[in-house]
Amino acid sequence: MQVKSTVNAAGRKVPLLINGEKVVPFRGVGKHKPTGRKYAPPIPSCTDYPPDGNKVLASLGEALRKCGLRDGMTISTHHHLRDGDLIANRVFEIAREMGVKDLVWFPSASFPCNEPLIKYLEDGTINRIEGSMNGPLGRFVSEGRMKGTAVLRSHGGRVQAIQDGEVKIDLAVLVAPSADSFGNARGTGGKSACGVIGYAKPDSMYATKVIIVTDNLVDIPCYPMEIEGNYVDYVVVVDKIGIPEKIVSGTTEITKSPDRLLIAELTASFLELSGILTDGVRIQAGAGGTSLAIGVFIHEILKNKGWRSAFGFGGSTKYMVRMLEEGQMGYILDAQAFDLDAVRSVEENPLHVPYPVFNAYNYHSKGNLTSMMDIMILGATEVDLNFNGNVVSHSDGYLLHGIGGWQNCLHARNVILPLPLFRDRIPVIVDSVTTLCGPGELIDVVITERGIAINPLRKDLIRRVKGSGLPLTTIGELKEEAENICGKPSKPEFEDRVVAAVKWVDGTVIDVVRQIKTKK
Amino acid sequence: MQVKSTVNAAGRKVPLLINGEKVVPFRGVGKHKPTGRKYAPPIPSCTDYPPDGNKVLASLGEALRKCGLRDGMTISTHHHLRDGDLIANRVFEIAREMGVKDLVWFPSASFPCNEPLIKYLEDGTINRIEGSMNGPLGRFVSEGRMKGTAVLRSHGGRVQAIQDGEVKIDLAVLVAPSADSFGNARGTGGKSACGVIGYAKPDSMYATKVIIVTDNLVDIPCYPMEIEGNYVDYVVVVDKIGIPEKIVSGTTEITKSPDRLLIAELTASFLELSGILTDGVRIQAGAGGTSLAIGVFIHEILKNKGWRSAFGFGGSTKYMVRMLEEGQMGYILDAQAFDLDAVRSVEENPLHVPYPVFNAYNYHSKGNLTSMMDIMILGATEVDLNFNGNVVSHSDGYLLHGIGGWQNCLHARNVILPLPLFRDRIPVIVDSVTTLCGPGELIDVVITERGIAINPLRKDLIRRVKGSGLPLTTIGELKEEAENICGKPSKPEFEDRVVAAVKWVDGTVIDVVRQIKTKK
Repeated sequence: MQVKSTVNAAGRKVPLLINGEKVVPFRGVGKHKPTGRKYAPPIPSCTDYPPDGNKVLASLGEALRKCGLRDGMTISTHHHLRDGDLIANRVFEIAREMGVKDLVWFPSASFPCNEPLIKYLEDGTINRIEGSMNGPLGRFVSEGRMKGTAVLRSHGGRVQAIQDGEVKIDLAVLVAPSADSFGNARGTGGKSACGVIGYAKPDSMYATKVIIVTDNLVDIPCYPMEIEGNYVDYVVVVDKIGIPEKIVSGTTEITKSPDRLLIAELTASFLELSGILTDGVRIQAGAGGTSLAIGVFIHEILKNKGWRSAFGFGGSTKYMVRMLEEGQMGYILDAQAFDLDAVRSVEENPLHVPYPVFNAYNYHSKGNLTSMMDIMILGATEVDLNFNGNVVSHSDGYLLHGIGGWQNCLHARNVILPLPLFRDRIPVIVDSVTTLCGPGELIDVVITERGIAINPLRKDLIRRVKGSGLPLTTIGELKEEAENICGKPSKPEFEDRVVAAVKWVDGTVIDVVRQIKTKK
Repeated sequence: MQVKSTVNAAGRKVPLLINGEKVVPFRGVGKHKPTGRKYAPPIPSCTDYPPDGNKVLASLGEALRKCGLRDGMTISTHHHLRDGDLIANRVFEIAREMGVKDLVWFPSASFPCNEPLIKYLEDGTINRIEGSMNGPLGRFVSEGRMKGTAVLRSHGGRVQAIQDGEVKIDLAVLVAPSADSFGNARGTGGKSACGVIGYAKPDSMYATKVIIVTDNLVDIPCYPMEIEGNYVDYVVVVDKIGIPEKIVSGTTEITKSPDRLLIAELTASFLELSGILTDGVRIQAGAGGTSLAIGVFIHEILKNKGWRSAFGFGGSTKYMVRMLEEGQMGYILDAQAFDLDAVRSVEENPLHVPYPVFNAYNYHSKGNLTSMMDIMILGATEVDLNFNGNVVSHSDGYLLHGIGGWQNCLHARNVILPLPLFRDRIPVIVDSVTTLCGPGELIDVVITERGIAINPLRKDLIRRVKGSGLPLTTIGELKEEAENICGKPSKPEFEDRVVAAVKWVDGTVIDVVRQIKTKK
């Protein structure tokens, strides 16, 4: 079937139908206003639930059957157990055994551990994945082997899609490190603790049926209730929901690479000299080695000046926990805990607060946290001459990453991308990003080991660091320098077929990924 | 207009239309199953809210105007400031100044402090109140002076009505002892602390517009967020939201009346001898003097036996706090804090947990807390020979109380009503309750100073206390004894006109209150 296309406001050619559903092409940042009402799940009744509150069933299979698992359903899972998750694959294994077909898997993220799902994509159990496709799943999609079209959304975009009814979840299967028999659940406790499970909150609220799977059944009330039992249909207790050492790293470590350390130092200096780093600053960084180093340098500056960050938004790590514990951070608001120190801190420290993505990232909300952040440290696979960013594909055209919270975080006041000038001799600065994930107008500064390029739209920042001694340059010069070293890489070639759509935070289609043309 | 009536499953004559809307007559306990979907409020967008998260406006008037206050709107408030609330009346004063008419006031409860609203009911600013009508407001309604028909709902029924869209809140004005500029809000802190504000959660989630009014603006993030700023449109900071000594009692005190103390002792003995009181028991009582005394006796028993209640559900008082602190209670799950000790405990003790009524009482939910409670101590204005209960009107026919959580709590495993045999020489046991609020099949035991009557449906309980030495009797004997002492009271006379409808927990109409026939 030939699907009609249009060129969206970012100049990208996108289809008007995806998986048979009408979509809205990207209209520009802040230009698309939703109409209509939130999605309304069916009204349940206490008469259908046991008065003693005990919703425990003997097996996941029984729970899936009681939820009426059938062809074409949309099944959601969350990714808080990361690469250690043992349940998501099991859901589709059972579906396969039941002979169910054409399911849509709607995870909050996928990991290499989900590679076994390829066989269910091949045999028709799963029609498509709407969610991040890392590594092997991304390659599978890029090669045009998935039946349906993938839909990539940011963490906040996923919440928006659930809330607005763009995606109707028939069945949410939510793993929980601790849960009670009523279905109240949390991310701490037990042998599979992951800290927080806030990504699952919208799924629990909007799905028609909700199953909690735990390996640590506790007495009622399981508290704090990150998931409220009032939204839960069944609870399944299994031996093991995850592999602890793959759920959280033992520790997260800062980079040891001299280049990356230089980038981190430059970033910290830039934040200090530009005046972005202040007393009371609100900070979000990631858990990558460079981000961690930046965090350590920021911590030093705060300490020396006697300043305190009002709060940091996690993904939390031991470095953030250290800031909290030593008094240089007021709160950690946390959407996921990356290491054992972070998990311990969530459990013990009342200032380390589980904070659902629902409350932080949803663009179709009455405001959200991202636009209140002063400092936002992000990565990218590519940035182009217009500061547009790509996080899902590589310059070879393959879909290899999810969006995560990246698009949402672009709404912060100062979006800084500390990036190596090239990776494996492939320049990071390109003429035009392979896949457009974030419009350049939202990206303020690119910091590389060979200089700092400030988006010309941020005249205020340019003015503030003029004469500061920082190695200022332009995005064009950075690109040239990289190409002088690495040469200009060849462009990937694509078939016409769209294999994945990339949604913007407001549900519009900002770009697509096309099937890779494989060399014959 | 003559409105068609029917006789519902409880034998009460009820209209088929109330305030022009179709209603469903009561069909029996657990007999009415909802169809359809939850109410869906409009989808908002971050583009309409300030990126820095600062939603503070200069005055309540400005906020009401910006929310588009106009004729016929439904305005909700919560009652956590109880008789000390300074804001609810102010909302209608402003509406009056703006010339707005025919509003519906939808409070979670009303108090004597709301008497000034009578003038707005008289001048047409307010069409009707859907919520509890205590004291002067109840008298006003009973005398047929309110334009619209009152609708009385339990706390859980109110949540159900909001969630199901039976009541569509245009504008929620929610007072908060602490809030930040984004609208995150909680019940602790500041000069007007009330402990928890969980009654306001459904209002914030389902109202089209939400205003937070606080006298204690704190830095972002106001934590814990009982109200999430993502649901909030505007924040108004005023000098004073309430009068502290009327918000919470300094202390709550057990009864000093010998009769009531006897009832309390009998109740504790009954609970012990019947085996209802066990290790791990889940308890809910109230804050009345008799209930408090029962709590103290239960505490003693638990202490002597080395037992612990798994949790108590509040309304919390210093007596519950003492159980928590001395180790005879695992958690207090709390919907409202009644005294200063309770407020302090919510603020300081992580085992004293704000627990929204949304999660405890909503019958159109996937189960709720009430049916899991082992011991439920409740009051009543009247109980009849079929164990039916009344809590809203007196035997003189006047509407004088709200339902509170009473109907919801009837779903507990053992519902005990410790009651004096008569009040002001009016017997409490009657042939048939003036207003039916709760079907007798849900009321298990009536305990008076002159004997204990067990509902014949509870054969198990009767068997368990046989030969225990407890003063067992029947409901008929209790009634006879009271009438021997007080005489048989004359019945009130009513006009035909329905002045208030009483909803059951599932949204059906269980009974109505008719206009009092005033003596000419």
